[in-house]
Amino acid sequence: MKKPVTAFAIFLAACNSPIDIEKEKARILQLDRDFAVLSVQSGAAEAFRQYSLEDLVLLPPNAEPVHGRDNVSQGFVEFDKQFILDWEPQAAEVAASGDLAYSWGTSTGTDRATGQPAFRGKYLTVWKKGADGNWKMLADMGNQSPAIAAQ
Amino acid sequence: MKKPVTAFAIFLAACNSPIDIEKEKARILQLDRDFAVLSVQSGAAEAFRQYSLEDLVLLPPNAEPVHGRDNVSQGFVEFDKQFILDWEPQAAEVAASGDLAYSWGTSTGTDRATGQPAFRGKYLTVWKKGADGNWKMLADMGNQSPAIAAQ
Repeated sequence: MKKPVTAFAIFLAACNSPIDIEKEKARILQLDRDFAVLSVQSGAAEAFRQYSLEDLVLLPPNAEPVHGRDNVSQGFVEFDKQFILDWEPQAAEVAASGDLAYSWGTSTGTDRATGQPAFRGKYLTVWKKGADGNWKMLADMGNQSPAIAAQ
Repeated sequence: MKKPVTAFAIFLAACNSPIDIEKEKARILQLDRDFAVLSVQSGAAEAFRQYSLEDLVLLPPNAEPVHGRDNVSQGFVEFDKQFILDWEPQAAEVAASGDLAYSWGTSTGTDRATGQPAFRGKYLTVWKKGADGNWKMLADMGNQSPAIAAQ
């Protein structure tokens, strides 16, 4: 008996509990929406500070890559004075192991001074599940979409 | 004996063979480099056609999202007449299950007519491993970086 039981124990240890992918996908989409709510309420600098891994890389439009959560958060301070950044995820996928995921969506920038739309954009976010079981951002990129003609 | 052996067999079936993450990461980086070589040699339209999943979403700068490999490839036809698109991956991560990965890197556009640099950029790519064991693109985004001042 001893040998198969040992092998069984090794497999048990190697095999994590099965991941409910649809549930994780819904979790990522909700997390991304909550992240946007925080951005609107408290600014992108605070939202990125709370939702990013320490070694996040941000790939902003018309700028160089920004490495590290603190630098990314700091980089939004001036932006936040001018704009409110909001977004809505469109789709997400999660790895079978439930430790890596991505979402993409559409974003809007609103001019704080006038309350008028300032730009439309898109984003692609890579999420990683930390040792604490929480998803945080590992990489994030944005760009602008064409302006919508005034009605 | 029967019961533990059965349970063991179930665990064996549930557990895929262990993934060598470092090997998969190196594979993604090499794939991304090979993809760039094909883009330079045969154009982005052909390269994206070969390296994308059928349901790829492309998030191009200053344009709307493009859904589907054929539309993405077609969208590069005019671009290819003007520019040579090249890139170099900077980093990649792979899920523990080895079925989802991402890479990001820096890109350059060269004007075909003059052979001169036309733009610098960045990209973020999400890769999915198909049933055939080959990695293909599930999502891809790009944006521009600031021009380098002439020396």
